[in-house]
Amino acid sequence: MGKYVFGVDIGGTTVKIGLFDREGCVLDKWEIPTVKDNEGTSILPDVAQSIIDKMKEKGIGQEDLEGIGVGAPGAVDGDGNVVNGAVNLGWKSFNIPKALNAYIDVPVKAANDANAAALGEMWQGGGKGYSNMVAVTLGTGVGGGIIVDGNILTGACGAAGEIGHIHMNDEETDVCGCKNRGCLEQYASATGIVRLAKMRLEKDDDPSVLREGEVSAKAVFDAVKAGDKVALEVAGQFGMYLGKGLANVATIVNPEIFVIGGGVSKAGEILLTFVVPEYQKYVFSGCRDAKFALAELGNDAGIYGAARLVLG
Amino acid sequence: MGKYVFGVDIGGTTVKIGLFDREGCVLDKWEIPTVKDNEGTSILPDVAQSIIDKMKEKGIGQEDLEGIGVGAPGAVDGDGNVVNGAVNLGWKSFNIPKALNAYIDVPVKAANDANAAALGEMWQGGGKGYSNMVAVTLGTGVGGGIIVDGNILTGACGAAGEIGHIHMNDEETDVCGCKNRGCLEQYASATGIVRLAKMRLEKDDDPSVLREGEVSAKAVFDAVKAGDKVALEVAGQFGMYLGKGLANVATIVNPEIFVIGGGVSKAGEILLTFVVPEYQKYVFSGCRDAKFALAELGNDAGIYGAARLVLG
Repeated sequence: MGKYVFGVDIGGTTVKIGLFDREGCVLDKWEIPTVKDNEGTSILPDVAQSIIDKMKEKGIGQEDLEGIGVGAPGAVDGDGNVVNGAVNLGWKSFNIPKALNAYIDVPVKAANDANAAALGEMWQGGGKGYSNMVAVTLGTGVGGGIIVDGNILTGACGAAGEIGHIHMNDEETDVCGCKNRGCLEQYASATGIVRLAKMRLEKDDDPSVLREGEVSAKAVFDAVKAGDKVALEVAGQFGMYLGKGLANVATIVNPEIFVIGGGVSKAGEILLTFVVPEYQKYVFSGCRDAKFALAELGNDAGIYGAARLVLG
Repeated sequence: MGKYVFGVDIGGTTVKIGLFDREGCVLDKWEIPTVKDNEGTSILPDVAQSIIDKMKEKGIGQEDLEGIGVGAPGAVDGDGNVVNGAVNLGWKSFNIPKALNAYIDVPVKAANDANAAALGEMWQGGGKGYSNMVAVTLGTGVGGGIIVDGNILTGACGAAGEIGHIHMNDEETDVCGCKNRGCLEQYASATGIVRLAKMRLEKDDDPSVLREGEVSAKAVFDAVKAGDKVALEVAGQFGMYLGKGLANVATIVNPEIFVIGGGVSKAGEILLTFVVPEYQKYVFSGCRDAKFALAELGNDAGIYGAARLVLG
């Protein structure tokens, strides 16, 4: 049983890497650039080299290493296969553990990056102490990760937990990034909140601080905190959509806790006051007592979760 | 490793019991009455006695027995605890394996009856050969069971898979059995189909064979097969709700296959023609290829699944 694990979070611009002990303390973390040339074929060799260099630097032998966990964008199944490629990296479909093992022969596990981040929050973040958890990331889009009995729910082809694409609204005319209409992401992401705010501002001439400067999710929640009536309505709509969407998630997977992260969650606890009452209104009674918490690891959730993957 | 397992499906009127070999062949099956007096405290002792009698009859020793699986109505968690009691049986909360072990000391596993039925369909029914499956039972209500990597998804307190209580319609004024409004069950159960049909018939005077005799889910699908225009509209509405609901289930758990059972499914393959196109319209693209099949085990799904529980 090795004393150390590496957690790797592959993003479109940089790869974050962390060195952890088994208890989840981060001993070192750093970044390397993501080289996307040649269909991203040098990304994993670069990661392997960087880890080998770090092991030399720290005097860590291969026998001290439990393994390497990798989080990557795109659908990744339970065996670490990139199922439909990863457009952001130029990747086609292949098996991550085998590709990495060609350069460094230690146990490797891989998962979708949002799922890895969910596992990270369970291990050392907002979901610590729970083993049935749903992580929701409110950023440019809405991402999700579902943890069942301490393990990531990947589904048949790595597409489980796509909470942002739950269908919410039959009347929607705008198209979502996924090409459907009326997805949760269109109302509960940072982009979605801006869209809701702009529609509300266009509806009439009600005064609002949102009419000054650029409309952003942050501006909306800042205005909410200042008691702005229009912003409160927008936050109410956001909360209705997210609360109702998460109610359906709970009715299906019955988690102990929801952990809300991503840029929008920086608004703080006030965010939950718009979501939780709507959740409780729509959820199946047996799931009404689920807890809600904010994510705690920020951009490091991915490396934590990737490392945790290896510890099984 | 024992050669035999017993599967027990506890219903409100009778307890079904089956004797299986490890390969899933049913060697014998029978029923005993469910005695609900005294808060149902004699149900499990009766089950134990019936199994002991059967073992004597067949010359099966305790060493030949792998164990007993039990399906029961109500929420049952992963450890076999009845979480909130089981109203239909008069049961309060307790641990099924321990209660049964007081009378017969072999390994016991327990699950919610709908979840057990799902596992049965995966083992020997419509979902044979798959390990990521969602079973949907269209009866008086809409039940569900979610199988992930061959195991039942129970959730934090045994309430996962309550597909019938996904929120579908903000405009609904009628109340569901769960006290919410707009649950899938209000449109996709046998009762729900009758409700949709009655509302449609009251809307205008369009001719329909449904105006003769009693309206039932069977009558609706019989009329559909005869080309009745009003019945086709009702089936279309049913399909829209069920397809859209299952699309959201897939976007969350990404199964390989949906297996549709219960009384309504006796309509046959034609049922799926109303559901699948709606499913494909609303589901996240990565989950679009899920298969649909009809359940095959009927009322025996519960004993199959209960037996399968023990084989782990």
